Amino acid sequence: MIIMNQDRLRRVIDNMHRQGLEQILVTATASVYYLTGVWVEPLERLLALYLDDTGRCVLFGNALFGLEEGDGLTVLTHTDSDDPVAQIAQTVRPGKLGIDKFWASRFLIGLMEQRRDITPVVGSAPVDDARMLKDAQEIEAMVAASRINDQVMAIASAAVKDGATEEELAALVERTFREKGADRSSEGQLVCFGPNGADPHHAPNRTVIARGDTVVFDIFIPIHRYWCDMTRTFFFREASDEGRRVYEAVKAANLAAEALIRPGLPMRDFDRAARKVIEDAGYGPYFTHRLGHGAGLDCHEPPDNSSANHTIAQPGMVFSVEPGIYLPGKLGVRIEDLVLVTEDGCRVLNAFSKELTIL
Amino acid sequence: MIIMNQDRLRRVIDNMHRQGLEQILVTATASVYYLTGVWVEPLERLLALYLDDTGRCVLFGNALFGLEEGDGLTVLTHTDSDDPVAQIAQTVRPGKLGIDKFWASRFLIGLMEQRRDITPVVGSAPVDDARMLKDAQEIEAMVAASRINDQVMAIASAAVKDGATEEELAALVERTFREKGADRSSEGQLVCFGPNGADPHHAPNRTVIARGDTVVFDIFIPIHRYWCDMTRTFFFREASDEGRRVYEAVKAANLAAEALIRPGLPMRDFDRAARKVIEDAGYGPYFTHRLGHGAGLDCHEPPDNSSANHTIAQPGMVFSVEPGIYLPGKLGVRIEDLVLVTEDGCRVLNAFSKELTIL
Repeated sequence: MIIMNQDRLRRVIDNMHRQGLEQILVTATASVYYLTGVWVEPLERLLALYLDDTGRCVLFGNALFGLEEGDGLTVLTHTDSDDPVAQIAQTVRPGKLGIDKFWASRFLIGLMEQRRDITPVVGSAPVDDARMLKDAQEIEAMVAASRINDQVMAIASAAVKDGATEEELAALVERTFREKGADRSSEGQLVCFGPNGADPHHAPNRTVIARGDTVVFDIFIPIHRYWCDMTRTFFFREASDEGRRVYEAVKAANLAAEALIRPGLPMRDFDRAARKVIEDAGYGPYFTHRLGHGAGLDCHEPPDNSSANHTIAQPGMVFSVEPGIYLPGKLGVRIEDLVLVTEDGCRVLNAFSKELTIL
Repeated sequence: MIIMNQDRLRRVIDNMHRQGLEQILVTATASVYYLTGVWVEPLERLLALYLDDTGRCVLFGNALFGLEEGDGLTVLTHTDSDDPVAQIAQTVRPGKLGIDKFWASRFLIGLMEQRRDITPVVGSAPVDDARMLKDAQEIEAMVAASRINDQVMAIASAAVKDGATEEELAALVERTFREKGADRSSEGQLVCFGPNGADPHHAPNRTVIARGDTVVFDIFIPIHRYWCDMTRTFFFREASDEGRRVYEAVKAANLAAEALIRPGLPMRDFDRAARKVIEDAGYGPYFTHRLGHGAGLDCHEPPDNSSANHTIAQPGMVFSVEPGIYLPGKLGVRIEDLVLVTEDGCRVLNAFSKELTIL
C-alpha cells in the first residue's frame, strides 16, 4: 500500500501556490520517493506522479515496477505495449502544467500531441524547494549515514600501510560501507595518493603509496537512500613543511566556513569565508572549485554552496563544506564535512577528527 | 577542429528525408560523437547538434566543454550565465523539429517558450537507424574491442582458484581491461559463483568459490568508445550432471542462433531459434530474458534481439547472442557473443572457446 507523505505533500502544494502552478508532474526517482516512499528507477520506461493544487495525486508507472495500490493517491499502470503517456493525457487539466526538469522529451512530446490544450512549463521547484529543507525523519537518516561514514573512515585510514594501492583501499571503503548497510551506488570511492590528489576527481588506480604522500579519502554513498559524503586527508609516514602549511590552510578554511554558517546569511558568504582563508595563505589559485553542494536523496542537490548562490540559508538545509588546495605534481588536500543548518548555527554531521594526522 | 563525418551525415539526412523530418536536434552524447567525433558528457548542461535537410550543421554547447572550431559546421557556445537554448531558438526553422528522445524537458520547454512556431516531434530515429548499421571504421573498433575481451577472459578465467572471491575477480577484470586501453565505465563487471549465477544481474560480492560452482564471467566495457560484451561460464573443479546438461543446452542455443543469423530474416527468428533449443531440453521457463541487445557506442542500443522485434537483419548490425538458464538456488549458465551481420551470415566477434571447461 503506497501512502503519500501528507506533511511533505502539503509543503509541495504550498510551494505550488506560491509559484503559480496549479498542477505538476513529478518524475525524478528521488522526488517521487520523497512523496510516496516508493523508489523506482524507470530507466527508459515511464514513472510520473501527478499533483494538483487541490491535493489530487495520481501515480503513473509501468506494470513491471510492481506498484501497489495507494492510500490518498490513485495508481495507474500501463504495459510495454501501451502508449505510456495515454493515462496522463486523460488526467491532466487544460492550461499550465509544471514538468520535472529532466523528464525525457519523448514523453513530453507524446503528451503534448494528445493534449494541445496544455502549456508545459518547467515545474521542478515545488518539490526541489521542499526537499531542500530536511524534515526530522530525513535529518535522522542523514545523521545516521554520516555516523557510518565516520566509522568507515576510521577503518579505511587504519588500513593505509606500505604497499597499499589506491584501488584496494577504495575497494575496502566500498565493501565496508556495504557491510554497514549502504545502498548500491554507481559512484566509485575516491582515494588519491600524493600527486594524484592534485586532481580533485582522480580515479583510484594501482598507484602504490610512498613515504610522504598525502592520502585523500573522499568517501560517499547513499545509506537507506540518503547520502553521506566526507573527505579527510592524511599524510603517510611524514609530512613536508609545504604539506603542513597547505593542510592547516584547508583546515582553517573548513572551520571558518562552519563557524559562519547560520540561518539568514546568503550561501555565497560561506564560500567567501573559506576562500578568503585560503587566499590569505597564498593558495587562492589552487582552490579551484566551489565550497560545496547540497546533499540528501541526491548526492548533489540544492542548495549549491558557491559564490554564485544568493539563496538565504535556512534551518534544515544540508550541504557539504569542502575546501581544497591542489598543487599540480605535488599533492592535494581537501577536508569535507556535511553540515545541517540549525536554528542558530549549524551542526557538523561528521565527527571524524580534522587534526593533521600522520599514518 | 571539429570535422563532421560526411558519410554518416549523408546517411542521417537520407533517413530524415525518408522519415519526413526537415530538421532535428541530436543531443545524446554518443549520437553527437557519431557525427562529430566529439565526446562530451554534458550532465545538467546543454549539448545539441542541429541538422537540417540541406546539410546545415550547428553544434551548441557550454563553453566549459572546450569545443573547437568546426569544419563543415558552425560551433556556438554559451556560458553558465546565458540562457542555454537562446542560440538554438535563433537557429531553428519554423515547423516540425525532431527532438532526441531523452533530451531534458527543461531545454525543450525553454525552446518552445521562445519559438511558438515550432512543433516538436520525437526525432531520434534518423541517427539511431544510421548507428544501427556499423560502417567499416566502427566494425574495426568493435572487432578490436572484442579481441581484447577475449584476452581479458583468458586472464580472468586463469585466475580462478581456491579462496577466490567474486569481488576480487571482478576487480581483476576491470583492471585488466583498463591496462589494455579500455575507457572508464560506470558499469561493474559481473562475476557470479554457483547459486549467485541464478540471478542474471547478481553483483559480485565476497562470496568465496566452492568446488562444483558454476563461474559466470559477464564482462563488458567500452574500448575507444565501442563496447565489447561477452559471457562465458566455467565449472570449478567438477561439474554435476545437471550442470553439464544445462551447459550443453545453453551452448547449443547459442550456436543455433548464430547459425541462423543472416540478412533478410526478422530479428525475432533468432530469439525463437535459441529459445526452442532450451525449451526442447526442458529448461524453457528458466531462460528468463531476451536473447540479446544491439551494441555499439552504447552497451544497449538497437537492434533489440528479442521475440518482439520484427526488424529485418541487415549487414552491419551488431548485437549480442546470450541465451542463459537460471536454476534458483543452484546455478546459472550464460554464453554470450557479439555478432556482426555480414552479407551472407554473421561473424562472431568473440573467439574465446565455448567448450565446457572445468577450471
